[in-house]
Amino acid sequence: MQQLTIAGTVFSSRLFTGTGKFGSSQQMEEAILASGSGLVTVALKRVDTKAPGQHNMLAHLRHPHIRLLPNTSGVRTASEAVFAAQLAREAMETNWIKLEIHPDPRYLLPDPVETLQATAELVRLGFVVLPYVHADPVLCKRLEEAGAAAVMPLGAPIGSNRGLRTQDFLEIIIAQSKVPVVVDAGIGAPSHAALAMEMGADAVLVNTAIAVAGQPVQMAAAFRDAVAAGRAAFEAGLPGQSRGAHASSPLLAFLDE
Amino acid sequence: MQQLTIAGTVFSSRLFTGTGKFGSSQQMEEAILASGSGLVTVALKRVDTKAPGQHNMLAHLRHPHIRLLPNTSGVRTASEAVFAAQLAREAMETNWIKLEIHPDPRYLLPDPVETLQATAELVRLGFVVLPYVHADPVLCKRLEEAGAAAVMPLGAPIGSNRGLRTQDFLEIIIAQSKVPVVVDAGIGAPSHAALAMEMGADAVLVNTAIAVAGQPVQMAAAFRDAVAAGRAAFEAGLPGQSRGAHASSPLLAFLDE
Amino acid sequence: MQQLTIAGTVFSSRLFTGTGKFGSSQQMEEAILASGSGLVTVALKRVDTKAPGQHNMLAHLRHPHIRLLPNTSGVRTASEAVFAAQLAREAMETNWIKLEIHPDPRYLLPDPVETLQATAELVRLGFVVLPYVHADPVLCKRLEEAGAAAVMPLGAPIGSNRGLRTQDFLEIIIAQSKVPVVVDAGIGAPSHAALAMEMGADAVLVNTAIAVAGQPVQMAAAFRDAVAAGRAAFEAGLPGQSRGAHASSPLLAFLDE
Amino acid sequence: MQQLTIAGTVFSSRLFTGTGKFGSSQQMEEAILASGSGLVTVALKRVDTKAPGQHNMLAHLRHPHIRLLPNTSGVRTASEAVFAAQLAREAMETNWIKLEIHPDPRYLLPDPVETLQATAELVRLGFVVLPYVHADPVLCKRLEEAGAAAVMPLGAPIGSNRGLRTQDFLEIIIAQSKVPVVVDAGIGAPSHAALAMEMGADAVLVNTAIAVAGQPVQMAAAFRDAVAAGRAAFEAGLPGQSRGAHASSPLLAFLDE
Repeated sequence: MQQLTIAGTVFSSRLFTGTGKFGSSQQMEEAILASGSGLVTVALKRVDTKAPGQHNMLAHLRHPHIRLLPNTSGVRTASEAVFAAQLAREAMETNWIKLEIHPDPRYLLPDPVETLQATAELVRLGFVVLPYVHADPVLCKRLEEAGAAAVMPLGAPIGSNRGLRTQDFLEIIIAQSKVPVVVDAGIGAPSHAALAMEMGADAVLVNTAIAVAGQPVQMAAAFRDAVAAGRAAFEAGLPGQSRGAHASSPLLAFLDE
Repeated sequence: MQQLTIAGTVFSSRLFTGTGKFGSSQQMEEAILASGSGLVTVALKRVDTKAPGQHNMLAHLRHPHIRLLPNTSGVRTASEAVFAAQLAREAMETNWIKLEIHPDPRYLLPDPVETLQATAELVRLGFVVLPYVHADPVLCKRLEEAGAAAVMPLGAPIGSNRGLRTQDFLEIIIAQSKVPVVVDAGIGAPSHAALAMEMGADAVLVNTAIAVAGQPVQMAAAFRDAVAAGRAAFEAGLPGQSRGAHASSPLLAFLDE
Repeated sequence: MQQLTIAGTVFSSRLFTGTGKFGSSQQMEEAILASGSGLVTVALKRVDTKAPGQHNMLAHLRHPHIRLLPNTSGVRTASEAVFAAQLAREAMETNWIKLEIHPDPRYLLPDPVETLQATAELVRLGFVVLPYVHADPVLCKRLEEAGAAAVMPLGAPIGSNRGLRTQDFLEIIIAQSKVPVVVDAGIGAPSHAALAMEMGADAVLVNTAIAVAGQPVQMAAAFRDAVAAGRAAFEAGLPGQSRGAHASSPLLAFLDE
Repeated sequence: MQQLTIAGTVFSSRLFTGTGKFGSSQQMEEAILASGSGLVTVALKRVDTKAPGQHNMLAHLRHPHIRLLPNTSGVRTASEAVFAAQLAREAMETNWIKLEIHPDPRYLLPDPVETLQATAELVRLGFVVLPYVHADPVLCKRLEEAGAAAVMPLGAPIGSNRGLRTQDFLEIIIAQSKVPVVVDAGIGAPSHAALAMEMGADAVLVNTAIAVAGQPVQMAAAFRDAVAAGRAAFEAGLPGQSRGAHASSPLLAFLDE
């Protein structure tokens, strides 16, 4: 399978995960290990080293193959995002940042204008920026031009588990992008993740669907395999769809012989 | 993972495959082995032992973990189907039969009335019958009552690769059936196969999408993994979908502190 | 607009309606008149002339442009259906019958085998038979061959309002049928009805979506207009869909001049 | 039917149309009259009064009930858009402007950042601004706050005729917006337009699907009726969808009596 490289870092898995909503830090750790993920997002709030429970949480993420990706979840403007990214860089000793700016408390949808502005500023400040955005092809192109290391368009509202509701636009983004495309938000089942990979997405980020599953560790492994399968299918060359039928079994001649 | 049992035979894989459209018998064999499939359909015509090439073809399917499932592809009526099944039983030394009756040469869609009649007759004759049918919940129930060992409703026209276009009805069939439900026809990508398993289907049958892929062996492995992932997700308990958003990252408090 | 003819009777409207679930007979009458419908299904039970309320109900349907279409709703077998049809012919003085055979009390889905058998028998007995069936192209062809005056494939389970969930198969039925195709069941909004007409269906039957609307009379008129619009669009020649964009406005040259 | 008011102007029709791609100015005029539309977009290039054919074209749009809406199609930045809007105001004697900024020549998708900036500037300059945008709920909210008179989110790429591929996000936009929501681009059939209205959109803009239809005048009338039907259904209260079935005909009791 082709390697995925973001900002010079090679990832052996195309499944990225998050740390929210798990029942316990122990369960989170087991699920993330089962997922095979090498990039794990962490909300800045969670890495507050003064909170004793949080300190413990970070310890569960210390594995040599895992890179942490702090996110700016909760900020509403570009300047808040820049501030949060700087805090995260200090606290977590990484210049990678998942940029999330959502002024809307209900659907948690990202703000395109603030996101572009913050991306440009954070790139200038030396960050490796992965912005979470609507599946807007023009915006993704501008983020790429502003120096984003990857773009993270959404499939559906965060936590909705509705799958790739933006499929038509993800296809355009994937066709046009020169940086990796990571489908984020809305992926609610392994089949959704496989579909994103079959379409040629470079990676997917899954959190809710694993964390709130009946059995999160098994679900994480299921996503791992579905992502690998979807990517393998993309590389193996999927056949096209058609309206009519095409027999896979030859019609029997014996009856007429 | 829970075992799948059909007519007393246990299958370790929930991916069934076919033998049509491959570039060579060698490629077919490699792909089927890569798929992990334990049940492989063969058109009766192909097992004509008088044809030298065909004889060779059967040799490629002789593996201890593989059960052959002759199909009646090409017949148009119940009586033709019964005749074909009897020929197949003799030629292939198995009383398992995939019943396919499609009078329509264009879309190869199955005939419900002939299929029910042939199922009843073949069950009486001691066959293990797996009928290929439209995703018609009432028909599937009647086939079950007539003694079918499993039902094989279609997702889309054979070879169309269009996926689960009958999803609403497959859900009803799965909810109602007391025999295994094998989704057949139309599955064109690993994501389709994963979705069928997530819905609770017992197995899927894939042929065209593997055989005509750019690299059939890799595609077979991708289907193998996607089927396993979809089933694992089903057993691990998929979360529901919702319209609104549900934050996976807690909102940051630090900005307001 | 092209005329619709079923069994020699010309219909000026391609919207057929039902009589169930209305708040009152008065409301039903107003809604049916607003719909412009010329063919109205009535459950045999409702025309029991001994029940005083029912008698009144029939009176509300006596309009010169309206043909009544008794249905066999509630029967489970071909023989029950034939018996019900004969009762209906006597009670309602029409040899038209909407054949509905649904043994399944939960989803009310039709039985293909009993329906084909009853159709053949009722045609022999001189009925004009309009069978309600799953969207099964092979079955529809056989019903046509058995003498059905039209076929009535379902879009989705009765009363579900889910629209054309069987679209791929309705397209095949429409392409193949030599008798009128009336899409029945599941049509829950005027847009669904318009879509059926745009696909080339000959008519649609709508009941629940009108009867349980907030304002049934206005909803009936909305369906009337949507059906007419969908048919007009079909006849006017809808353009195809494409993946890319096609500018409807020419790009401005003045900026570069 | 409830009135639609944009910037103090009342529109009796909720169908807006465009002027591109028609076979002739005569055909365009007939189609627009048949559509009942009271708001018609015109590309600035087309109103170049020095071009003899163009002059003639404008004459075909002079009807008392029609308000012209010049668009900025072809511009790539906010400053080009402001310049184009000023030219349009002079040439067409209206301060209404449909703001279209699409730097991307292939899919003609709008730029969110430039559009927000140009909207603010044009509002400051006294324009009534109707921006064409991606179906991005956060952007639509910001445009509203910047003084846009309406928002015009897209359903699918311009001219693709693919319908409401952004449905999940249009629903959020409609639920949140305090200014009229006009679904623009991608509407390829009357059923698509009806669906937009049923969802509660305030209006739709259709151009390609009418202009390139086999018979544009009849197609325009079909869209007129479908839009009215969809709106009437919205106001009459559409019933919800469900998974199970709900009988519209009572089950027959007579068989058991």
